[in-house]
Amino acid sequence: MRRGLMALKGYAGRVLRIDLSKGRIWEEPIEEDAAIRFIGGRGFVAKILCEEVPAGVDPLGPENELIFMAGPFAGTPIPNSGRHQVGCKSPLTGILAHSDCGGTWGQELKRSGYDGIIISGRSERPVYLWIEDGGAELRDSDHWGLDAYEATDAILKETDQGAKVACIGPAGEKLVKFASILHDGRHARMAARAGVGAVMGSKRLKAIAVRGSGEVEVHDPEGLQRSIREAAQDIVRGCEGLSKNGTANIIQSCELAGDLPIKNWQLGRWEEGAERISGGTMSRTILTGRFYCARCIVGCGRVVRVEDQRFGAVEGGGPEYESLGALGSLCLVDDLNAIAKANELCNRYGMDTISTGSAIAFAIEAFERGLITKEDTGGVALEWGDWRTLIEMVRMIGERRGVGELLGEGVRAAARRLGRGSEEFSMHVKGLECPMHDPRAYASLALGYATSNRGACHMEAFSHVIERGLAIPDLGYPARLDPSSFQGKGEMVAKMQNLMALFDSLPACKFLVFGKVGPARLSEWFGYVTGRVVSKEELLLAGERIFNLERLYNVRCGISRKGDWLPLRILADKRADRWESTSLPHLGEMLSDYYRFRGWTIEGIPTEEKVKELGLEGFVRNPGATWGSPKADKAD
Amino acid sequence: MRRGLMALKGYAGRVLRIDLSKGRIWEEPIEEDAAIRFIGGRGFVAKILCEEVPAGVDPLGPENELIFMAGPFAGTPIPNSGRHQVGCKSPLTGILAHSDCGGTWGQELKRSGYDGIIISGRSERPVYLWIEDGGAELRDSDHWGLDAYEATDAILKETDQGAKVACIGPAGEKLVKFASILHDGRHARMAARAGVGAVMGSKRLKAIAVRGSGEVEVHDPEGLQRSIREAAQDIVRGCEGLSKNGTANIIQSCELAGDLPIKNWQLGRWEEGAERISGGTMSRTILTGRFYCARCIVGCGRVVRVEDQRFGAVEGGGPEYESLGALGSLCLVDDLNAIAKANELCNRYGMDTISTGSAIAFAIEAFERGLITKEDTGGVALEWGDWRTLIEMVRMIGERRGVGELLGEGVRAAARRLGRGSEEFSMHVKGLECPMHDPRAYASLALGYATSNRGACHMEAFSHVIERGLAIPDLGYPARLDPSSFQGKGEMVAKMQNLMALFDSLPACKFLVFGKVGPARLSEWFGYVTGRVVSKEELLLAGERIFNLERLYNVRCGISRKGDWLPLRILADKRADRWESTSLPHLGEMLSDYYRFRGWTIEGIPTEEKVKELGLEGFVRNPGATWGSPKADKAD
Repeated sequence: MRRGLMALKGYAGRVLRIDLSKGRIWEEPIEEDAAIRFIGGRGFVAKILCEEVPAGVDPLGPENELIFMAGPFAGTPIPNSGRHQVGCKSPLTGILAHSDCGGTWGQELKRSGYDGIIISGRSERPVYLWIEDGGAELRDSDHWGLDAYEATDAILKETDQGAKVACIGPAGEKLVKFASILHDGRHARMAARAGVGAVMGSKRLKAIAVRGSGEVEVHDPEGLQRSIREAAQDIVRGCEGLSKNGTANIIQSCELAGDLPIKNWQLGRWEEGAERISGGTMSRTILTGRFYCARCIVGCGRVVRVEDQRFGAVEGGGPEYESLGALGSLCLVDDLNAIAKANELCNRYGMDTISTGSAIAFAIEAFERGLITKEDTGGVALEWGDWRTLIEMVRMIGERRGVGELLGEGVRAAARRLGRGSEEFSMHVKGLECPMHDPRAYASLALGYATSNRGACHMEAFSHVIERGLAIPDLGYPARLDPSSFQGKGEMVAKMQNLMALFDSLPACKFLVFGKVGPARLSEWFGYVTGRVVSKEELLLAGERIFNLERLYNVRCGISRKGDWLPLRILADKRADRWESTSLPHLGEMLSDYYRFRGWTIEGIPTEEKVKELGLEGFVRNPGATWGSPKADKAD
Repeated sequence: MRRGLMALKGYAGRVLRIDLSKGRIWEEPIEEDAAIRFIGGRGFVAKILCEEVPAGVDPLGPENELIFMAGPFAGTPIPNSGRHQVGCKSPLTGILAHSDCGGTWGQELKRSGYDGIIISGRSERPVYLWIEDGGAELRDSDHWGLDAYEATDAILKETDQGAKVACIGPAGEKLVKFASILHDGRHARMAARAGVGAVMGSKRLKAIAVRGSGEVEVHDPEGLQRSIREAAQDIVRGCEGLSKNGTANIIQSCELAGDLPIKNWQLGRWEEGAERISGGTMSRTILTGRFYCARCIVGCGRVVRVEDQRFGAVEGGGPEYESLGALGSLCLVDDLNAIAKANELCNRYGMDTISTGSAIAFAIEAFERGLITKEDTGGVALEWGDWRTLIEMVRMIGERRGVGELLGEGVRAAARRLGRGSEEFSMHVKGLECPMHDPRAYASLALGYATSNRGACHMEAFSHVIERGLAIPDLGYPARLDPSSFQGKGEMVAKMQNLMALFDSLPACKFLVFGKVGPARLSEWFGYVTGRVVSKEELLLAGERIFNLERLYNVRCGISRKGDWLPLRILADKRADRWESTSLPHLGEMLSDYYRFRGWTIEGIPTEEKVKELGLEGFVRNPGATWGSPKADKAD
């Protein structure tokens, strides 16, 4: 593999840069210092955004950058390292977006000789980017208008059947604010959250196809293999359920715990529904195979086949837990075939299933309250539990028809436009629709949603797994914490956010924590890969640095404590059907503890001391200000 | 005394109505049924607003009504019954305003033969209303521009030196949104909160002078006297501290408990400052006498005299606890003379001291952050703890000069206009500036502030006295509750709000609870006064009816659960100097419990069942809607 000049192994040592306005393509080296400080993936995204994209730019304008970043583990034999990050300033939230994606694309990019791609400008005509072993060219795209499955097929034909394609669908073209980027075609690995697909659409970039035949060099292959063999069994064992029934394996236990959002977060029990859409049911009915991301030894990806007269066949990637929640329980739909169809449509249109399902549930509730009428929906009555509503609304959003125009702006913007109390049931944080875990079941989720840098996110902290009983090696969590208490959650969420920022930067699949992979193991692997010994403490510090850097970007966008909040429905509604058994999350206490542990001010701004400790002085725009920027109203 | 036809004693049985647009004056009877269901004072205000003032009217337009209401106890020998209510739709909050006032005016109104006055329309020229024993006339006012002390003096000269005058100052004339109505001249009893003075100013009504020589008839004078004698000793004993050092008696204990807001709610300790502005210090230095409202046997009102070269003399009413907090600790001012002066200026301009001090503290913090500059203040640097800042800012607000124009809109509107993060330190609920008790010390205050019908209010629930250890007779609170826990607070706050709505309607001073006066005693007195036996349960039900009726009015204005919230500083900031010892209020849990106990939906709307139980069906505007009205954005 061609490599840059960097001494550290594992890295390609350079990024590809594209200016679509000028049609220019060039390479730039990655500095070793940056690699050690920001690791890769999500860390690089944050660094580049802070350096190159002012907080005030229009997310859909040419000044925004779309950044694809792998990291030192991608393309190595490290298990479950087939991931990469896509980042930009988000058109959905107005703050930083980082979107994690599995599959084979990141490994392929590394094999082609790049750690990442940074895309600026806007092409006049639709184009796609074709990268083959270090060579790169922009090609006119006549795939505009094709859905993401079709476009991937066509581009594979025009390039190389072995290429890996990242591709947007009609939703990205039409700037649906939560449009996503499909990878791996019908296997449907998605850079889904926060509207990265809309930014790609705004640049008129339909796809990036990449083919790489190089090998990613590692410093000590034998040492690495030995360490992987040691770890592998625990990983396989710890992920048995995932392997068997996919991420949907937990649907029923989540419902039991009150963790599964139901009917736009109104209800807490849906036992029979959960059974009908569970991973077990999927395995017994529509499952035809599994999908493994690069180097994966678990295989949680589902391949399904549905034949249903109502809407024809569904073939390819099956719905994940999050999609089953958003398109299923959130809309009271317990029809697995219909959910699989809606999921496939989201893949084809190129849309985040979480945001899509949330927008539909919001619309149904708004319809019920008379805020949206049949005039808006083209005559369709929006009803809970109705497969027709589900399918038709996915189509309307994907095509931005009728009320789909409004819903495609995301629930925050939709509620602001609708008014009349609809903000009370628009379930988002900082503009990002809430994922399918309920903070009324696991208190730390409340804090995680409130403080995650991209808005409501369960994966930036991933701390509720500790409240479910998981031990995290090397992090001081051998024991179960009380899920309903705020005690100790501030520290726990901060520590986990740092660790997860590390996972997202190396990259490594977060499910590895189920297999006892923690900071020590990651530090070991980092050493074998790069040839540089970096202690687990130093790695965690890098995770903290990355998380703080993202926060600093968001501070520029106007985020402070005021943005660190949750929809009132989660904070104050015990849910009628679980009243006696539900404890509402005590966000105020957790937030205070969290800021203190983070070394932030009570307004949620990293202090000067903390910034210095992390060596981030150069990234602070207004060193005098401890307050949000003048852009506050854009980002709240 | 002239009385209407109503059989119930205690009531005058009629109200005076004034249409200022037409210069029309007439009388209307009060129905016995309304008296039993809504009692008087605050209950009548709510009923009239609901019946006559649509939610959509401009609070400063002629369609708004300004309502003065006494109640059956006013003018009777019942201790501490010298109170009345002033109500309208508030220009500060956009929702219902009820403003409780002590003094002698309410008793005098009753003696003149009216239970209340309802004023609609708008006069072309400034006028005042002169009522003398049932005769009423509108007179041209050439007092426009005079401060409220001077205007009162002038009007007394033109009418009768024994008359009682309710009067606005320049702030009311200039529509400062938190302008108040002064009563009893230099003794300065204020209908202070929520901008009733601005509504009076908008109607070009400078004052209402009233003289009454009648006696208020009671059904059983001997029985009443016997019962009063029984109760009197407990009242005097229970209010000893109030009698000795006024409401300011508790300043130091509040500081110790973390209950005193300091530096715009940023700090939790200010021991020496609190000592310097305490009631004890006032008693030892500037106190010259006490003021007793009608029938009061406590005398918490302060009369002070200050001679200070910096700003001349202060004479008359001294600062209450709330004024010492807002003009003192909130601005870090520990100069008692300066606070007394600022307080006097607020009385003369006719402004709520709580809102004025809150606006000044907000301005100082905004100045510190560079959001307000010397250009805005006419060259004055706004500084914490600076008497010049305090005095000058009171003047600028009262005269709406410079930045006083902005601050006179209230902190909610000021922050919306300033932007740039200033909403984070604008301390209000529903637009009403927070009073001087900190929910981080007594959790029930959080719920009380969040759910009080006029916005942030400590007197609608007055429940923190229970958390301080007070027993409330007949209400099931013989024991101290944990001030930091949310347990049981929903029920407690709802019960106290019902009881306090009753106090505000009878009327009776709420300090009577320190003297063991509870529902049973009030029921006894109600029977002796009116001749109608009404059980304590029925009276509490009337209190609940009144509170729910107010809520129904606010629902029409767009209030629902979304409005029932607190400034984030209170919810999430432990205060650096009390970090370890502070528990933040768990508002989410309390709110859920509260709605459930109230029989409201999870959106905070009284259910159909509750509305029926209270016989309020006729007051629901959209029986089908369980949601806020289209006016939501006006009132949030």
